[in-house]
Amino acid sequence: MSAIFSLALPHVAAMHAYTPGLQPTEPGWVKLNTNECPYPPSPRAAAAVIAELSGEGEKLRLYPNPKATPLRQLVARLHGHGLTEKNALIGNGSDDILNLLVRVFGGPSAPTSVTIPSYSLYPVLIAIQDGRCAPVEFDRSMKLPVEKLAATPAKACFLTSPNAPTGVGFSNAEIAELLARFPGVLVLDETYAPFARENAIPLLAANPRLVITRSLSKAQGLAGIRLGYCLAHPEIIDLLDRVRDSYNVNRLTQVAAHAALQDTGYYDAIIGKIIRTRDYWFGEYTARGWFTYESQSNFLFTEPRNARGECGPAVAKSLYEFFLSRKILVRAFPSHPLTASFLRISVGTDEEMLAVNEAVDAWLKS
Amino acid sequence: MSAIFSLALPHVAAMHAYTPGLQPTEPGWVKLNTNECPYPPSPRAAAAVIAELSGEGEKLRLYPNPKATPLRQLVARLHGHGLTEKNALIGNGSDDILNLLVRVFGGPSAPTSVTIPSYSLYPVLIAIQDGRCAPVEFDRSMKLPVEKLAATPAKACFLTSPNAPTGVGFSNAEIAELLARFPGVLVLDETYAPFARENAIPLLAANPRLVITRSLSKAQGLAGIRLGYCLAHPEIIDLLDRVRDSYNVNRLTQVAAHAALQDTGYYDAIIGKIIRTRDYWFGEYTARGWFTYESQSNFLFTEPRNARGECGPAVAKSLYEFFLSRKILVRAFPSHPLTASFLRISVGTDEEMLAVNEAVDAWLKS
Repeated sequence: MSAIFSLALPHVAAMHAYTPGLQPTEPGWVKLNTNECPYPPSPRAAAAVIAELSGEGEKLRLYPNPKATPLRQLVARLHGHGLTEKNALIGNGSDDILNLLVRVFGGPSAPTSVTIPSYSLYPVLIAIQDGRCAPVEFDRSMKLPVEKLAATPAKACFLTSPNAPTGVGFSNAEIAELLARFPGVLVLDETYAPFARENAIPLLAANPRLVITRSLSKAQGLAGIRLGYCLAHPEIIDLLDRVRDSYNVNRLTQVAAHAALQDTGYYDAIIGKIIRTRDYWFGEYTARGWFTYESQSNFLFTEPRNARGECGPAVAKSLYEFFLSRKILVRAFPSHPLTASFLRISVGTDEEMLAVNEAVDAWLKS
Repeated sequence: MSAIFSLALPHVAAMHAYTPGLQPTEPGWVKLNTNECPYPPSPRAAAAVIAELSGEGEKLRLYPNPKATPLRQLVARLHGHGLTEKNALIGNGSDDILNLLVRVFGGPSAPTSVTIPSYSLYPVLIAIQDGRCAPVEFDRSMKLPVEKLAATPAKACFLTSPNAPTGVGFSNAEIAELLARFPGVLVLDETYAPFARENAIPLLAANPRLVITRSLSKAQGLAGIRLGYCLAHPEIIDLLDRVRDSYNVNRLTQVAAHAALQDTGYYDAIIGKIIRTRDYWFGEYTARGWFTYESQSNFLFTEPRNARGECGPAVAKSLYEFFLSRKILVRAFPSHPLTASFLRISVGTDEEMLAVNEAVDAWLKS
């Protein structure tokens, strides 16, 4: 080991970084690999940024509001259910908040439970903290394994709902049952909840151990500005504020998010469109004989079959590479038997989804 | 303790958050408390943001470049000395990078050394990590205590150069001596280096254990966008990338910083102006009989004397409160004997510095 690595903490010297999805910088890609919104954000976001830049950007010399107070107030008000600014915290993307949650609750004395498959960042955040990870596997049904989750000795549990990469949603009845049986902090990552039938925000008031995280990267089409938030009991917000960077969210992101979140009419329309597109192609993939999980998110997790009717990891890989050759980016998850035969395709515009479909037809004939 | 606090890591349940400087949101303040630039940033920053917002912000739907590669290349090129993109990492403010450095090098097995006084965030970052902190005190001369720093058993040392809140700069000869005698990683926080006679970048090539952090919040007038970077050996950059949030810097900040950093003519002019203002008022405060450290930064650390010629913590407090009553914000550091008799006054515009001076005259007559 080099002299520098020997000065680093051993667990960091031994770990691997999280691998984000490919973000090509050249144009011409059909980019359906990181569940971005296929439609632009509310034009109010750009307008708010431009207003903040008045006087050739003179306000940029000043630090942002350290607590992003106006945004805390806004998200509490928008979600209702008696939430106030004391229930809200704003992050530099929801990844920032997930990181803070691990730093508050994910210690070495007790493991932190995560489900498999789910967002692969959680185990990396736990590894950065030198924490222990208690993975709980789904079975092929992808139904919430309440019993197994309740049986871990974890102090905190990270659960994505609707789940990624499957898209499967969990009901509030299931979440409430898990909260009743699991005595720790339940972090419910609701990144995809705007596309779901139900969300767990009504459960917050009665459940001080429930933390809900949200992102503006998917439904609000603002992955580029990095804005996430969480809603929880004020004592949890207090703990997170202790480990949060004082100026974690810059001025431009704060004003863009504040303006966009209020444009509910715009977002109702594009979320509705994404749901209709998703459900249409769910029907088409299923009609091809491809097993596809019913999605409550903005992507489809489907098990492709080749022209001979075969499915499996090699078939998924073949289609992934065929897509790539046509400059179509989707996401493959080859490292686990539950996911290796599948591809995750973000819901794009009609044009993008047709390009995918034409590529599938060509692959089947190839 | 509440049920929620008992689920948190004990060291987080017991700690206090870092207290950032006051950031008033109402207008009318002479704000000289957080060392922001008194002049607006290069107009190229706002222009670059507006260009990135083309098409009503449609690009905001896409994730930013996860590594901020163009910025890594640019800062390496601008600093020269053979640095390449492999020597650079971009952060959501330099606070983000300081946090990553603690997470890589600040473990419980060996303490992390910091100087007193210095940037009070370092001990908070170490506390968040449940690390041990080895404080090394300056004496009133504020000269670098090389011997004491070299004698700690620390694996990493955080040093601000020029130092805050004193403004005192350290020479490369002193830094090189410390590197020769201290066997760990030396994090040199050069937030204020653009205002100094010397910086340690020429030392990087020969010293793989040296990490230099920089910020665009002071000299570049861009505190509002959150952008910092560090320069170090590629192995250190590799370690930091493992614990870094994949999308830590948003799109708008990336383009604003990229445009601003290239406007060297603009910044040479305003940095020159700030230095001239600083040196003028250093002379004036000294002529008043106020002991003031010779500053190589964008602030003055001065020990006020009242009309009876007295100085001390009560005198500093009295002037601080008098300033406050006139809507002038400066920074006081009452918690340590080395700093309690002083006030730190950021270098403002000529108008702001005159307002401070008039307030001092009025205070002396009050």
